[in-house]
Amino acid sequence: MTTALGRPPALSILLVGDDPASQVYVRNKERAGGEAGLAVTIHRLPSTAAVDDVLALVTALNGDDRCDGILVQSPLPRAMGKDASERVFDAIAPEKDVDGFHPVNVGRLVQGRSSMPPCTPTGVIELLRRDGGEIAGKHAVVIGRSDIVGKPMALLLLQRDATVTICHSRTKDLAAVVSRGDIVVSAIGRPGFVTADMIKPGAVVVDVGTTPVSDRSVVAQLFGADSPRLATIDRKGSTVVGDVHPGVLEVASAVSPVPGGVGPLTIAMLLKNTLAAARARTGL
Amino acid sequence: MTTALGRPPALSILLVGDDPASQVYVRNKERAGGEAGLAVTIHRLPSTAAVDDVLALVTALNGDDRCDGILVQSPLPRAMGKDASERVFDAIAPEKDVDGFHPVNVGRLVQGRSSMPPCTPTGVIELLRRDGGEIAGKHAVVIGRSDIVGKPMALLLLQRDATVTICHSRTKDLAAVVSRGDIVVSAIGRPGFVTADMIKPGAVVVDVGTTPVSDRSVVAQLFGADSPRLATIDRKGSTVVGDVHPGVLEVASAVSPVPGGVGPLTIAMLLKNTLAAARARTGL
Repeated sequence: MTTALGRPPALSILLVGDDPASQVYVRNKERAGGEAGLAVTIHRLPSTAAVDDVLALVTALNGDDRCDGILVQSPLPRAMGKDASERVFDAIAPEKDVDGFHPVNVGRLVQGRSSMPPCTPTGVIELLRRDGGEIAGKHAVVIGRSDIVGKPMALLLLQRDATVTICHSRTKDLAAVVSRGDIVVSAIGRPGFVTADMIKPGAVVVDVGTTPVSDRSVVAQLFGADSPRLATIDRKGSTVVGDVHPGVLEVASAVSPVPGGVGPLTIAMLLKNTLAAARARTGL
Repeated sequence: MTTALGRPPALSILLVGDDPASQVYVRNKERAGGEAGLAVTIHRLPSTAAVDDVLALVTALNGDDRCDGILVQSPLPRAMGKDASERVFDAIAPEKDVDGFHPVNVGRLVQGRSSMPPCTPTGVIELLRRDGGEIAGKHAVVIGRSDIVGKPMALLLLQRDATVTICHSRTKDLAAVVSRGDIVVSAIGRPGFVTADMIKPGAVVVDVGTTPVSDRSVVAQLFGADSPRLATIDRKGSTVVGDVHPGVLEVASAVSPVPGGVGPLTIAMLLKNTLAAARARTGL
């Protein structure tokens, strides 16, 4: 893709350390970006890097006119300390913050005027808009309250006129709360946690959980002893399992698969944000 | 109050135009600030002022070292245009934004690290903390989804471990949704809208609505033909009525009154934010 920029929109991804899941995520983003015609550059830092090294790189990219979007892959190494992510996300120039994690972008999201909405919840909205029927007037239940998924998810559903309930680890009688949802979005990272008895018949269920599971017995119990996922474990060491139990398929009108459901849309939204950032910065 | 600043914390209030309710609100803030020992300055602009006049004043106060907090009283005159408030709130330096409306302060609130939380929802939390029993684990229902009350209210309740439902004008079967609340916060500005049949017995109900009512028949129907509020209408031309119907008192375990409930706490939180702003700016 060459745009009126005179060059392809450019995305810089910072990958710190050697977390295996992060390696996969970054590779997927690099591939999808390349296929869409973006220039994707991966900046790798060792797991021994200090938070100041990351901040220095972010500052350099903020000032680099050839860089349109900056993404720092989470999680940062634990050794960097608890507030490392916060410090790094705060340092990214809001107009290049394609993940939408900078507080000013979060605030604009709350106010319904975000130009950089966070990728995963926006991907879920896109999925619902295409395959989930009307959102307005529905009761949507969000399971999980993370800054990255749960809270912005609830805000986006509210913006589209759903009645929204957010529940979490401290929710009492969670099954009863979830069973009131016409739309249920689960983002807690507990394999098979959402079971059929929690779901209103005909509800639309979106599974944001992606937990690598290497224990064959867990997978056999969830998916059956003849599941092809067992072969995946044999081949790759693990299989990615969502929050939603396969039994939910019998009750819900639609369930997004893991892998393959929300993930690709999350990446599509990242590319969209990068393009929007390039356009906005250059006044196109 | 003279602090280690060497002078009292200073709050600047911008009042544009002659909206009668705004005059009252500003006078209350001025009085409470004065009683608490703050230096409160009211900057009055005529209703014919342009948004650029307001922006120029905000910019001057941002740069004025003797000003710790800036509050622009809402609403701005309609003639200023639809995005006037947004432009003005965006222009206030976040560290002087004692209303907590700047997007970066809203974003930090979402992320659970706000130093400038919005006054009304924080006042409600304070009220609940003192008189409403435990918040954690309760199901809280927020009626209304404004940027100023509904959304930050939901986020603050979530942060205190409530399960939170937000409903609004597009909610279907609102009575059933509200009736699940152990805590109900109403902020829609419709006198007497929340009726006893919507409330779970024993629930705690917080009334954020404040609508001036001058129609005697409306007041008589809500509060009875012998209500002292009728004399208030005769004397002042109107009486301030909340969202919660008086009949709710028979069902709920506690109901905050209007006037007198959330209002004074909102002002207290404003003074608290001003003091915090003075301390933070001067590194105390």
